Amino acid sequence: MIKRRLAAGEVLVGSFAALGSAVAVEALARAGLDFVIVDLEHGAGDESRVLPQLLAAERGGAHALVRVESTARERTTRALDLGAEGIVAPRVDSAAEADAWAAALRYGAAPGARGVALGTRGAGFGLDPDALDRRPLGVVQIESPAAVAACDGIAGVDGVDVLFVGPSDLSYALGCFRAWDHPELRAATARVVAAAHGAGKAAGTFCPTPAQVPAAIDAGFSLIAVGTDVALLVAGGRTIAASI
Amino acid sequence: MIKRRLAAGEVLVGSFAALGSAVAVEALARAGLDFVIVDLEHGAGDESRVLPQLLAAERGGAHALVRVESTARERTTRALDLGAEGIVAPRVDSAAEADAWAAALRYGAAPGARGVALGTRGAGFGLDPDALDRRPLGVVQIESPAAVAACDGIAGVDGVDVLFVGPSDLSYALGCFRAWDHPELRAATARVVAAAHGAGKAAGTFCPTPAQVPAAIDAGFSLIAVGTDVALLVAGGRTIAASI
Amino acid sequence: MIKRRLAAGEVLVGSFAALGSAVAVEALARAGLDFVIVDLEHGAGDESRVLPQLLAAERGGAHALVRVESTARERTTRALDLGAEGIVAPRVDSAAEADAWAAALRYGAAPGARGVALGTRGAGFGLDPDALDRRPLGVVQIESPAAVAACDGIAGVDGVDVLFVGPSDLSYALGCFRAWDHPELRAATARVVAAAHGAGKAAGTFCPTPAQVPAAIDAGFSLIAVGTDVALLVAGGRTIAASI
Amino acid sequence: MIKRRLAAGEVLVGSFAALGSAVAVEALARAGLDFVIVDLEHGAGDESRVLPQLLAAERGGAHALVRVESTARERTTRALDLGAEGIVAPRVDSAAEADAWAAALRYGAAPGARGVALGTRGAGFGLDPDALDRRPLGVVQIESPAAVAACDGIAGVDGVDVLFVGPSDLSYALGCFRAWDHPELRAATARVVAAAHGAGKAAGTFCPTPAQVPAAIDAGFSLIAVGTDVALLVAGGRTIAASI
Amino acid sequence: MIKRRLAAGEVLVGSFAALGSAVAVEALARAGLDFVIVDLEHGAGDESRVLPQLLAAERGGAHALVRVESTARERTTRALDLGAEGIVAPRVDSAAEADAWAAALRYGAAPGARGVALGTRGAGFGLDPDALDRRPLGVVQIESPAAVAACDGIAGVDGVDVLFVGPSDLSYALGCFRAWDHPELRAATARVVAAAHGAGKAAGTFCPTPAQVPAAIDAGFSLIAVGTDVALLVAGGRTIAASI
Amino acid sequence: MIKRRLAAGEVLVGSFAALGSAVAVEALARAGLDFVIVDLEHGAGDESRVLPQLLAAERGGAHALVRVESTARERTTRALDLGAEGIVAPRVDSAAEADAWAAALRYGAAPGARGVALGTRGAGFGLDPDALDRRPLGVVQIESPAAVAACDGIAGVDGVDVLFVGPSDLSYALGCFRAWDHPELRAATARVVAAAHGAGKAAGTFCPTPAQVPAAIDAGFSLIAVGTDVALLVAGGRTIAASI
Ligand SMILES: [Mg+2]
Ligand SMILES: [Mg+2]
Ligand SMILES: [Mg+2]
Ligand SMILES: [Mg+2]
Ligand SMILES: [Mg+2]
Ligand SMILES: [Mg+2]
Repeated sequence: MIKRRLAAGEVLVGSFAALGSAVAVEALARAGLDFVIVDLEHGAGDESRVLPQLLAAERGGAHALVRVESTARERTTRALDLGAEGIVAPRVDSAAEADAWAAALRYGAAPGARGVALGTRGAGFGLDPDALDRRPLGVVQIESPAAVAACDGIAGVDGVDVLFVGPSDLSYALGCFRAWDHPELRAATARVVAAAHGAGKAAGTFCPTPAQVPAAIDAGFSLIAVGTDVALLVAGGRTIAASI
Repeated sequence: MIKRRLAAGEVLVGSFAALGSAVAVEALARAGLDFVIVDLEHGAGDESRVLPQLLAAERGGAHALVRVESTARERTTRALDLGAEGIVAPRVDSAAEADAWAAALRYGAAPGARGVALGTRGAGFGLDPDALDRRPLGVVQIESPAAVAACDGIAGVDGVDVLFVGPSDLSYALGCFRAWDHPELRAATARVVAAAHGAGKAAGTFCPTPAQVPAAIDAGFSLIAVGTDVALLVAGGRTIAASI
Repeated sequence: MIKRRLAAGEVLVGSFAALGSAVAVEALARAGLDFVIVDLEHGAGDESRVLPQLLAAERGGAHALVRVESTARERTTRALDLGAEGIVAPRVDSAAEADAWAAALRYGAAPGARGVALGTRGAGFGLDPDALDRRPLGVVQIESPAAVAACDGIAGVDGVDVLFVGPSDLSYALGCFRAWDHPELRAATARVVAAAHGAGKAAGTFCPTPAQVPAAIDAGFSLIAVGTDVALLVAGGRTIAASI
Repeated sequence: MIKRRLAAGEVLVGSFAALGSAVAVEALARAGLDFVIVDLEHGAGDESRVLPQLLAAERGGAHALVRVESTARERTTRALDLGAEGIVAPRVDSAAEADAWAAALRYGAAPGARGVALGTRGAGFGLDPDALDRRPLGVVQIESPAAVAACDGIAGVDGVDVLFVGPSDLSYALGCFRAWDHPELRAATARVVAAAHGAGKAAGTFCPTPAQVPAAIDAGFSLIAVGTDVALLVAGGRTIAASI
Repeated sequence: MIKRRLAAGEVLVGSFAALGSAVAVEALARAGLDFVIVDLEHGAGDESRVLPQLLAAERGGAHALVRVESTARERTTRALDLGAEGIVAPRVDSAAEADAWAAALRYGAAPGARGVALGTRGAGFGLDPDALDRRPLGVVQIESPAAVAACDGIAGVDGVDVLFVGPSDLSYALGCFRAWDHPELRAATARVVAAAHGAGKAAGTFCPTPAQVPAAIDAGFSLIAVGTDVALLVAGGRTIAASI
Repeated sequence: MIKRRLAAGEVLVGSFAALGSAVAVEALARAGLDFVIVDLEHGAGDESRVLPQLLAAERGGAHALVRVESTARERTTRALDLGAEGIVAPRVDSAAEADAWAAALRYGAAPGARGVALGTRGAGFGLDPDALDRRPLGVVQIESPAAVAACDGIAGVDGVDVLFVGPSDLSYALGCFRAWDHPELRAATARVVAAAHGAGKAAGTFCPTPAQVPAAIDAGFSLIAVGTDVALLVAGGRTIAASI
């Protein structure tokens, strides 16, 4: 369904969940986020905490995505079995890598790589007649110069729905760390967006704060993750500490 | 040590931890809070999550308090055995109640009610020669008209270090729910602060947002809890959702 | 909403969740149960596992109730803060006990006993303008001869929506343990149902297996809990073991 | 079965489990302990961690007891439903208190107070035909002068199998804290042992280290708990630290 | 010991544990299952929940196996260190793969690949003098046409004790998804059984319900896993829901 | 900081934490250990339990290291994001392997392989201006003849601070299992120490008990891990069991 909303051109705003807390995720979802990305790459939570967070996001009315720690097949299939609506794959540098990873989004043998176990939560506990045909949202992070160079190929991969620019790693690699307006970063970003759109896919990115969102929309992004729950607490704590 | 800081007249600002998340607590502590109150009365966490939160608060440089669910002896002694530096007791309506509760802050038989088990974390794992003599911070919530009426007596109770006005429950009972400037609420609040100061104790209260802190300081409060981690996430989530 | 369904005369069937497992609860809910009762009286789970189970029940389309371990105020208010849609109170023997307990279902001072903390999950994270006025479903277990004798009074208590016959304890006390058709048990049961209906309330009960459900409906029960998740596993395991 | 061993005059040695760790409990059990007491009064674990520890003790070949935080009925019935083979009740000061508590060890109405729920682990998941008749080991801590004075009456209470001297609290109350050889402590201890034996019950106590065990046996104790898992780690850690 | 029972030709029936719940596992074991397979490939639990489930299976009298998520060395050695009596490896397609994986079942350098750490639970906490020589049960899933083609070679691998047909994935790959009586599936299955028996190994498979067990025994299978705990709950829940 | 202490030639003594228990870790740390190694290779805990153990070690005044299960990049970066001060990598057999692994200790693109996410605990929640430049302690286990042969090359790898001899695996491979004084083991050990010192790095090793520590210091080791928390409990339990 998030797949359909993005395909229809809708702009969605969400955040990363780095605490590993279901309460935090539901609070964010009820506050109005369109999606939450449970972060298993850099978040403090881990796979043992994914399920309650998925439940919490869904109950709060948000799409529940998972950022896996790597493109290893099992990390993606486990998150899908738990019921993630989509997967964010970090550090994808080539179309071949994207293609190999995307197989894990599909059931069965090649081009699928996901075991056909229909009793899982992700398959509706065996009660969903359409389980085999559902396709989760596939999001690929573009966060290196190599990935930018390969972005047209990546965008063409079946199963990849969103090219997601990771601006921290990309800017670091480009030598302009967190200089969000640096021309090289902007050029790379524009190239990724163009590749995504050219292939009929969506583009996504990370904004440190809500202030960057309008510019991200202008730049053509439609899956926009703003900060993390941890960052909201740090910012809030600083304001509290400064009130004295 | 928080006891000594309050006794010395220092003003301390902190927050309630309602998520039950150690990561959240450490983030808030590192952001500069003086103290964190792990909330077992209304928070989503429970006793099974207290210990990591205490560790996190302390590592982050904040005093670690626990708000227990009631004045029942075991709730307080359990939190102290886990190493809480102080206890916040809700819904105390009389000096007798305060006195009965405060016994749980002291080891041994009457006037103490805490079992002499020195191997606990709260007693330094048997390695702290002064464990028996340490006194945790005792905070009593004043949140009903009866409690306001009894506040002088409560302030005089040995072991009670802070009278903490609970403005939500108190204003609700006074018929002026969350009308922070209502004269009746202000009068009740002033009376509690005066009782605390008259007995050489500190006064504390809850502020929904940092904006109320300066007024709280002016009113004589020195232990000021601002919002909760959950509320920071709701506010942050709303800002993110509104950015689109 | 379960309140409204029962008030409208709907018959609802559910089960007790004794595993403490959110996955189990969601599986049962998706299989078609109208409600799940997270069991903190005899279940293997405890309060630290309630929240994911509530999320799971709701996500699966079932009403999420909690059976608390006793009528102690904090057990009920904690479950409500976590978001339970209703509370099942065990071992209530008199109208006075029911009345004292039911206060915990309402916010504020007498006749309420629930602290006015609106940032909790149960109050919609501060985002639900009607939170203060919501009333959870109040279910009282009638499981002793004394309770049967007092059932008219209990049925009249404000906040009690359902009189729930506990047939195991009641039959044991009547000396006809699990003799479901024993005349004394039937007479007691009928008296409770009549008391409930006489006061415009619903009647509920426990059926060990689905086979007893039609008779329970005939007897006037409309909140019918069938077995437990653990019992389903034991029965299933026995069938598997016998297949060899 | 531990009941039978103590009744047969066997001397059993065990320890308190204060870490809340199933691995720790199984390691201790496999090392040869006769019993482990999962400590919910002063231990760092809580009820959410009891079940794995019971499994671990049993698998390791040790009897699995639980020390509850207080004599409140629910604390004991919960531990029994989880499958504890016996309960250690702290701070019992009179025969009336012991009697009221012991009711929770028996199913049914007075003199029982335990709900007849036979699907629990403690009742063999509904598969144990003798569940209703089983009686757990009842251990009562004698740790105040009042309790010593009342020990004959306490020893006579049906359901109390062991009078367990708590030497830390008792010596503290007698003004001879941890002076294990103080004549007043010895006299009180001897009186408790005599009361137990006089009523045909066993006597138990706590020894800080194994060195005190022979004297405890000589003094007539047969349920002897030596230290805690935490204390073993502290002692071991000090030896490691001193090796450099 | 399960190794010896299978080698002796015994037929064993069990189930997959997909909930990640120790209570569920013990309930199934006590109901009479010969073995339980803790499922880390498609189950909702994960490695953090394995230990209590192993304890529960063993306490309930069942052999405790673990299905790992993949043949990666660490997944198998971790499960063995926790004390699994055997490992089920999914998606093995060749003898080389089986051989590489089976090295993880043995201590030491090639042909072993398991670190010699004898303090683990799997090695008896350092108290088992035979730990180094124990060999866990090695079960390899045959669930692709390639695996069927390679099954003679796989059956010959040292350390592989059971060839386990995964009928869902295999039938899907053969184009006859869950058509259990499809001739192609039957032929493939027969070939695997023959290969196993030819090499003096056992054959195993999965049956969705107990009704298929007799046929599976007839077909030569002796390690027969029937359904999952989750599936039992779904089936039970549907029966409950249909009772109204 | 542990980096600096070792570089300054200090000898540090610690232990492995195999229980996965934060309480155990803090108890060991407060007892005087210089460091604790949270063991994810052979310990019973897993990544979901790392964070509280790191907090506990730090609070207890010990350096907090993590032994990862393998040299896979994600295992190291996850532990660093959680805040480990150093990483112990098992089973490294060549300089190339060490070099590939060590990249995960550094942020950014080659020669770094760690994603630049500065909001993690390991990066000070975004509040540490020097986060990008910090270098964790890199410890490489030398536990095979191949590794001994390659130790000069391994010692030269940038990011490797300590060569840590794993005497159990190494002696097993050399055919002199746990014969700590076997000449072949001693020769291999001496060679590793010489290689470490030759490259200006430290040498570390494991001692089963404190008795071996002085000899280890004499042999040139300065990062000395003595036993495990589990082993301390087994030894302690045996002493208790023998006291009767
Ligand atoms: Mg499969
Ligand atoms: Mg005591
Ligand atoms: Mg209040
Ligand atoms: Mg009952
Ligand atoms: Mg090794
Ligand atoms: Mg990145």
